[in-house]
Amino acid sequence: MSGSSIGQHLVLTSFGESHGKAIGAIVDGCPAGLELDEKDIQTMLDLRKPGQNLISTQRKEGDVVEIVSGVFRGHTTGAPISMIIRNADQKSKDYENLKTKLRPGHSDYPAMMKYNHLNDYRGGGRFSGRLTATHVMGGAIARKLLKTTLGIETNAFTSQIGKIKMSKEFNIKMAKSIYKNEVRCPENETAKSMRENILDARKKGDSLGGIIESITTNVPVGLGEPIFNSLESDLSKAIFSIPSVKGIEFGSGFRGSELYGSENNDLYTIKRGKIVTETNRSGGILGGISNGMPITIRIAFKPASSIAQKQNTIDIKTKKETILQVKGRHDPCVVPRAPPVVDSLVAFTIADHALLTGMIKPVL
Amino acid sequence: MSGSSIGQHLVLTSFGESHGKAIGAIVDGCPAGLELDEKDIQTMLDLRKPGQNLISTQRKEGDVVEIVSGVFRGHTTGAPISMIIRNADQKSKDYENLKTKLRPGHSDYPAMMKYNHLNDYRGGGRFSGRLTATHVMGGAIARKLLKTTLGIETNAFTSQIGKIKMSKEFNIKMAKSIYKNEVRCPENETAKSMRENILDARKKGDSLGGIIESITTNVPVGLGEPIFNSLESDLSKAIFSIPSVKGIEFGSGFRGSELYGSENNDLYTIKRGKIVTETNRSGGILGGISNGMPITIRIAFKPASSIAQKQNTIDIKTKKETILQVKGRHDPCVVPRAPPVVDSLVAFTIADHALLTGMIKPVL
Amino acid sequence: MSGSSIGQHLVLTSFGESHGKAIGAIVDGCPAGLELDEKDIQTMLDLRKPGQNLISTQRKEGDVVEIVSGVFRGHTTGAPISMIIRNADQKSKDYENLKTKLRPGHSDYPAMMKYNHLNDYRGGGRFSGRLTATHVMGGAIARKLLKTTLGIETNAFTSQIGKIKMSKEFNIKMAKSIYKNEVRCPENETAKSMRENILDARKKGDSLGGIIESITTNVPVGLGEPIFNSLESDLSKAIFSIPSVKGIEFGSGFRGSELYGSENNDLYTIKRGKIVTETNRSGGILGGISNGMPITIRIAFKPASSIAQKQNTIDIKTKKETILQVKGRHDPCVVPRAPPVVDSLVAFTIADHALLTGMIKPVL
Amino acid sequence: MSGSSIGQHLVLTSFGESHGKAIGAIVDGCPAGLELDEKDIQTMLDLRKPGQNLISTQRKEGDVVEIVSGVFRGHTTGAPISMIIRNADQKSKDYENLKTKLRPGHSDYPAMMKYNHLNDYRGGGRFSGRLTATHVMGGAIARKLLKTTLGIETNAFTSQIGKIKMSKEFNIKMAKSIYKNEVRCPENETAKSMRENILDARKKGDSLGGIIESITTNVPVGLGEPIFNSLESDLSKAIFSIPSVKGIEFGSGFRGSELYGSENNDLYTIKRGKIVTETNRSGGILGGISNGMPITIRIAFKPASSIAQKQNTIDIKTKKETILQVKGRHDPCVVPRAPPVVDSLVAFTIADHALLTGMIKPVL
Repeated sequence: MSGSSIGQHLVLTSFGESHGKAIGAIVDGCPAGLELDEKDIQTMLDLRKPGQNLISTQRKEGDVVEIVSGVFRGHTTGAPISMIIRNADQKSKDYENLKTKLRPGHSDYPAMMKYNHLNDYRGGGRFSGRLTATHVMGGAIARKLLKTTLGIETNAFTSQIGKIKMSKEFNIKMAKSIYKNEVRCPENETAKSMRENILDARKKGDSLGGIIESITTNVPVGLGEPIFNSLESDLSKAIFSIPSVKGIEFGSGFRGSELYGSENNDLYTIKRGKIVTETNRSGGILGGISNGMPITIRIAFKPASSIAQKQNTIDIKTKKETILQVKGRHDPCVVPRAPPVVDSLVAFTIADHALLTGMIKPVL
Repeated sequence: MSGSSIGQHLVLTSFGESHGKAIGAIVDGCPAGLELDEKDIQTMLDLRKPGQNLISTQRKEGDVVEIVSGVFRGHTTGAPISMIIRNADQKSKDYENLKTKLRPGHSDYPAMMKYNHLNDYRGGGRFSGRLTATHVMGGAIARKLLKTTLGIETNAFTSQIGKIKMSKEFNIKMAKSIYKNEVRCPENETAKSMRENILDARKKGDSLGGIIESITTNVPVGLGEPIFNSLESDLSKAIFSIPSVKGIEFGSGFRGSELYGSENNDLYTIKRGKIVTETNRSGGILGGISNGMPITIRIAFKPASSIAQKQNTIDIKTKKETILQVKGRHDPCVVPRAPPVVDSLVAFTIADHALLTGMIKPVL
Repeated sequence: MSGSSIGQHLVLTSFGESHGKAIGAIVDGCPAGLELDEKDIQTMLDLRKPGQNLISTQRKEGDVVEIVSGVFRGHTTGAPISMIIRNADQKSKDYENLKTKLRPGHSDYPAMMKYNHLNDYRGGGRFSGRLTATHVMGGAIARKLLKTTLGIETNAFTSQIGKIKMSKEFNIKMAKSIYKNEVRCPENETAKSMRENILDARKKGDSLGGIIESITTNVPVGLGEPIFNSLESDLSKAIFSIPSVKGIEFGSGFRGSELYGSENNDLYTIKRGKIVTETNRSGGILGGISNGMPITIRIAFKPASSIAQKQNTIDIKTKKETILQVKGRHDPCVVPRAPPVVDSLVAFTIADHALLTGMIKPVL
Repeated sequence: MSGSSIGQHLVLTSFGESHGKAIGAIVDGCPAGLELDEKDIQTMLDLRKPGQNLISTQRKEGDVVEIVSGVFRGHTTGAPISMIIRNADQKSKDYENLKTKLRPGHSDYPAMMKYNHLNDYRGGGRFSGRLTATHVMGGAIARKLLKTTLGIETNAFTSQIGKIKMSKEFNIKMAKSIYKNEVRCPENETAKSMRENILDARKKGDSLGGIIESITTNVPVGLGEPIFNSLESDLSKAIFSIPSVKGIEFGSGFRGSELYGSENNDLYTIKRGKIVTETNRSGGILGGISNGMPITIRIAFKPASSIAQKQNTIDIKTKKETILQVKGRHDPCVVPRAPPVVDSLVAFTIADHALLTGMIKPVL
């Protein structure tokens, strides 16, 4: 109930806090017979790991994942797969002086009020972006499952940082270029400008937001349920579990609202014997159900709320105005670390629906 | 599992098809002791009723709701509240000739494939916008519950139709003006242009989309859970159950992605002894938890997919190209009918969280 | 949350009160393509209908079920199947004078306290045995689904009334004889004694309990999950939703507790090429998973709490001792009406697990 | 979905296998502000620990629990509490030769079939009684929560081993004597006979079952929901997650089935100003709701299926008859280790309902 689990057939449970002993995830409902070892998860975790370069937080985490259960002789067994990462590089003292000064844009204040100051506030505690590593643990399994059984692939990438946008539309050939730069933008030149922009923001003690796009290919027709468990419902629920996400759109999304029906409708045609649509303004989802076209999602990330600049705020103890200057190590822009997290949650949601509809069997 | 229910403590179950015998809803988990009768629900249903004017479908439905259970001597009892509306004005024959021609932008094709042609296709069946009446049945109860217990009020309105937008930002004084025109836009002059625009689209056999905004006031601090049951997660899941919705954003949303942190952060201050933020770019939600500011949401509706113009498509029987011309009665723009539906789902989600956190008691 | 739904993939939602306008059920998650009409449900409802003979309550209910949604052209569509029975023969006045005198053994007192006197007390309201008709609505569908797809059959019967027990152990050939008498006991002679016993209790203004046995055949190996969703867990949860049930055992159950392991273990052997056990003390379930043998359950029903004899009790208004004499029409023994209810809940639970494990497809 | 979680508001998730790296549990939804440290859990774990004496398995496990998250400065935070026990004393080789010979009464065969031989079979894997340690982790927290907030106490004890039964009925004064002997029977003399009986069974290479009784005191009126989430439904679902449990009854249970209504009804009276019943044949639950009397449960455990005697069985590889002689270390009787497990599941279920009804607040 307290929201640490998601999914119906495939259930991901997340635990841990940013500066606690460990963080971890449990995946229940994964079919027996999937080849799996720690490398499958570690590889994907490494892509979101902090401390890799100048544009992210300087916190260094080994982030070495251990599979504790659910895998036997190199394959999943049908039992819950539990995974754990011990926290290492914690500098909790950095946060002690913040305890009473409310950080603008941060979860501090509602969390304090909700839990009557009992929550673990160190490093953001349960609200930290660090917890998205638990999403990736689950997502790495879901991605491998989808790839192995249905050939489905997810590709998330940075399409915008601040006001700098990709110049072309994504096409699937760009997928290989996503991880060729630190920004995770498949256009190398644009990525350079984005990087400059981020470094500039960091220098000013400021932060930037941006947009992640997600394209999922080889999706079969028929995933999702009418009314409450539409694919858009479940994907958006999952995506909004990422801190900093403030918007989501499928296909033509907000831009589609300005079009006429005759402009926004995707016309059916036949290609290589298959019914497809000529355009994909629906983002691959009609009536909440996948229509076989790629699922396309755009996700808005706000600029990180922790900035080095001085900000006016309130001291919750004195209930008086005060000045806050956040220390500690923070990402000037979290967007470049987000693609593996988005991929994880998209894959997890689609895998859950593929299991629900019987497209993936409980034993492979 | 098949997605006909939503909510954790307060659970809404929807049933029925557009051209079946009836549609209905069950609300389980509503506290005992809420004053309730059919008028409370009927009043809100009437606001989304079709056939009221030129800008909506000409299908006329009495849409008279009957409370079948859960209310005794004018109060809720704690038992599930079931409600039913008998369908009346069905013209199913209009749809017979569409059975094999895939309507662009419509759920036909994925539904046929998902259910192997066994689904009730008449009038869109389970996928029809008509089913949003079941959302309103649940929402009317949730709204009354929120108003009565916590003073929370939801206000959804049309802020954009096609390319025509409201000229000012919404402020709470405008709430009274929302239902003064057919378009549900609190700016009367803008509403007139929007209406012209819709009538024009209808004349062309075309359709329009638009944007609904939702402002919820008097929200206490502390609703929502970290990680998977964030308020944004649960609100978006609910909102995407509305057909035609393709995008959602909270607070500054997509626009916020282009700002610096120093521009997007809301600074804390004290007003009338209460901690508030000077601006509300967060949309009232931080870290997935309500922070006491109004919850602000923008929702993108695509233009209705059923248009009178001829469209190229595929006949699924012959697998050949063909021309489709949709008949039947359709909304040239569904947006003006959406505000009560959005209000319903926002209220339902917030009421569910208020019950989960103990802010509303199981017996009033 | 308030407990009106059960099941994971196949979900049954019950609504209504004994003396309200109607009772009904919604089955969500039933595969598309099952042949179904009202007769399938009515036939099974008629088997539990009251007022059929001397040994049950004299309340007469037409109990005519209407399928409101989810069935199209004689087949299920994959959409939720909603069913409703209008209540007819209500004599609520019989209950008015009971409002404050606590009926021993009845739900009155805890219900009053739980709902602060707001619950619908007429005829037991939400707690009435009448609500088991909603279990049967769901069960009739599940039974047909199991029979059609996997050949699974459930057979529940009365094996004991008061102290009168069947003389032999049930074997599957007896299944045809269950409904040949009013008591639903496959031994005709025993049934006569049971009937005498019930009539005798009625004459004394007293009531009797008894035991229902349930044998389910053709169960495939592999239904149920380890740990919390064991088949025994889910079956017992469903069965305890029947008012008056106070005990359940699988296979050798309580008697097995007194045996040595060497006596209670079922030895494996091969019959007609299939691995089976020579005996079935496990009741067809090992480690929470079906092992392919018939599932055997024994269920203890307490004697009905509403009796005509005078009983000492408390008046909740005065908080003083008083004498109660229950009027109204009551079953002197509910056991003979229980077999269709037990069959329903057993079938529903097994169908849910068969869907979860992929043994039944979402589209037939 | 795969059944590794239980509960609605308070959710227990179990992970791990008998001979894997570790076992563990996550409790989500525990209120913030409960004083908690590892000792609270360890103390209760120690009461079910194997290898303590002659009457249990000789497997020795340190079973040292580590709280990994959810506790900060000695109090729960509202975040999920995760706990882990590293497995130490594994002798997996003992099991290698059993891989193909089906052990009578054991989960081997259905597990192999369900998971197509992919499951971790070592030491029973996911089906091992060892996993009840994860129930105790959750239960220790629930018990402390119930004690602290509502004064509720659970007392489970051994009332029967094989054919040896306690001579008197349990009364609450006996609670202190439960853990004074290895058998966990509050009658010391009876405990001695039980112990003899178990040692004798062990010598013969055989095993014994028995009965655990559970008495919960200080239960408030009003826990449980009508229809599907009755207290009996949820308690039985939880209890049947214990391997070897084959029967459960509340109050007079099976014996009550043989009584007249006038004999079985509990008459209301007033004691010390409180409405109570003179007897407690209902076991403290009426209509699925607690009535304020102690909740009394009797639970049937079958004799352990692993015995040292030779048994006829089938080799699943050859599909031929063969002789099996189980080696490894096993409990000749699991009943004496079960009271803490029963206490855990009873407490967990009651705590969940107390949270659902608002009797315990989300923040203490």
